[in-house]
Amino acid sequence: MNKNRSIAVVGAGLVGSGWALVFARAGYSVRAYDPSETVRAGILTWARDSLNDLVQAGLVDDDQLAILARISVHETLAEAVEGVFYVQESVFETVEAKTAVSLELDTAIGEGVLVGSSSSGIPASQFTEACKNRACFAIVHPVNPPHLVPVVEIVPAPWTEPSAVDRIAALMEEVGQVPVRLTQEINGFVLNRLQGVLLNEAWALYEDGIASLADIDATIAHGLGLRWSFMGPFETIDLNAPGGIEDYAARLRDLYASMVRTPPPEPWPDAVISRAAEERRAELPLADLSDRRAWRDARLSRLVAFKKNQGLMG
Amino acid sequence: MNKNRSIAVVGAGLVGSGWALVFARAGYSVRAYDPSETVRAGILTWARDSLNDLVQAGLVDDDQLAILARISVHETLAEAVEGVFYVQESVFETVEAKTAVSLELDTAIGEGVLVGSSSSGIPASQFTEACKNRACFAIVHPVNPPHLVPVVEIVPAPWTEPSAVDRIAALMEEVGQVPVRLTQEINGFVLNRLQGVLLNEAWALYEDGIASLADIDATIAHGLGLRWSFMGPFETIDLNAPGGIEDYAARLRDLYASMVRTPPPEPWPDAVISRAAEERRAELPLADLSDRRAWRDARLSRLVAFKKNQGLMG
Repeated sequence: MNKNRSIAVVGAGLVGSGWALVFARAGYSVRAYDPSETVRAGILTWARDSLNDLVQAGLVDDDQLAILARISVHETLAEAVEGVFYVQESVFETVEAKTAVSLELDTAIGEGVLVGSSSSGIPASQFTEACKNRACFAIVHPVNPPHLVPVVEIVPAPWTEPSAVDRIAALMEEVGQVPVRLTQEINGFVLNRLQGVLLNEAWALYEDGIASLADIDATIAHGLGLRWSFMGPFETIDLNAPGGIEDYAARLRDLYASMVRTPPPEPWPDAVISRAAEERRAELPLADLSDRRAWRDARLSRLVAFKKNQGLMG
Repeated sequence: MNKNRSIAVVGAGLVGSGWALVFARAGYSVRAYDPSETVRAGILTWARDSLNDLVQAGLVDDDQLAILARISVHETLAEAVEGVFYVQESVFETVEAKTAVSLELDTAIGEGVLVGSSSSGIPASQFTEACKNRACFAIVHPVNPPHLVPVVEIVPAPWTEPSAVDRIAALMEEVGQVPVRLTQEINGFVLNRLQGVLLNEAWALYEDGIASLADIDATIAHGLGLRWSFMGPFETIDLNAPGGIEDYAARLRDLYASMVRTPPPEPWPDAVISRAAEERRAELPLADLSDRRAWRDARLSRLVAFKKNQGLMG
């Protein structure tokens, strides 16, 4: 039913290619563009291989060839955005690159066409101010890879139209992602702030010699992460006291306040990073990193399939 | 092969009963005691029901009746610890209660018998100093429920023998838990420090009106939590840069340092807690909390079964 509607994917590295799959499997025609000829040449091969993985994990039952056929690769940005109602932009993350592509998109798209940037940290106000259609631009930040991890953060610039946010959120839900709406731009958005405080604390515990890297990892992978793979921190604590979240807060907020480091940790120190890298490389040589990433993605896709079967997806 | 070796479970509420299941399903005879007659009367019924859940999730294929038959309930602490080589203590978490039960255990156990306390926050040095066998006491902190979430934190007091820690860690591995060793006592141990910083940030984001409670939860449940259900934060970032953890740190440590709040957040404020409780209660009335907990445990056990099938357990 979406076959007659088109979406452009601009910037088609790992993130952009993942987006192409997301939209194509939901039935949209996807028009992909990347400035690099090498990247353009690899898009369809990558999409075919990734689709195979999705089918094996039981995540796609639609005709693979039909999904692939919905993705077309274009040699110019202007051609890619022809006739689309939405552009997902995933170019290299610098203010310069984001500004340049936003201005180029701004002149190429028609009125009312929405543009979501995959930016993981730079807010849209830093690169869309000069666009005449800036009310239609917002951050639409996925977790890598977007075709496996469904959450997306939608972050409006001060000049983004609320109705543009509504339409993007509706599109994301329709294609099977889980949109999270931020009311304003903040450093790191929500997801990386949550990841950041946990990482900062993990580094500080490791620096203080409290536990090994592997043991700190185990407290998440075999502890907190089990619940967090299907419920967030608020629902978790809501279920962990007889009277719910208020009861939990009454019992434990002072304990959690007492654990805060004063002053907050400095950036992870060089010497500690070297020590951590040694521990990780003893566990996993650098040459095996990409195999392990493939292992992770295979596990991720089975986990997503499991969550779907259990009715735990968004 | 463990049938001739016994373990005592002292304090048999939800945590202690979970421990009884952990040890009994691994083949140990479990001698359970609780000061409350009502609690004692409920242990075997709870264990039978929970075993049924484990069987349905494909987590136990051993004879259920044989597992149940390994749990005996005793009317005194002295009787429960007769002939055991390990005691898992899970009484109410106050310094007074922990001190009283530790002193009672200290006189009742033979030399070399190990005692692990399920304490989630109070370190062993606050309640075992006066014990003559204090070298054999340590914190063995599970996540609730211990028969589903495998991680345990082993935290020695300054006077705990290193060999006692080694023996407890070996026992935990043998019964299918994942032991994490702390080198020293710190407030909140590792697991609750990691949970604490994430909760503090989540509350602050909510207080600032950046996103709704449900949306903050979604960034974990449909985002970060997917990876974290099978790999910790260090392995996660090690896989997220071409050159591994060092490369990731070089690229992103300044960004993460820039997200730290200065000063650190105050304890979650009353007004914010009330607002959060209203949102949660609109989602889930207080009367439905316990049904939702049963739902969570059913999902948890299926998740654990899934992780087992995928070779992702410790």
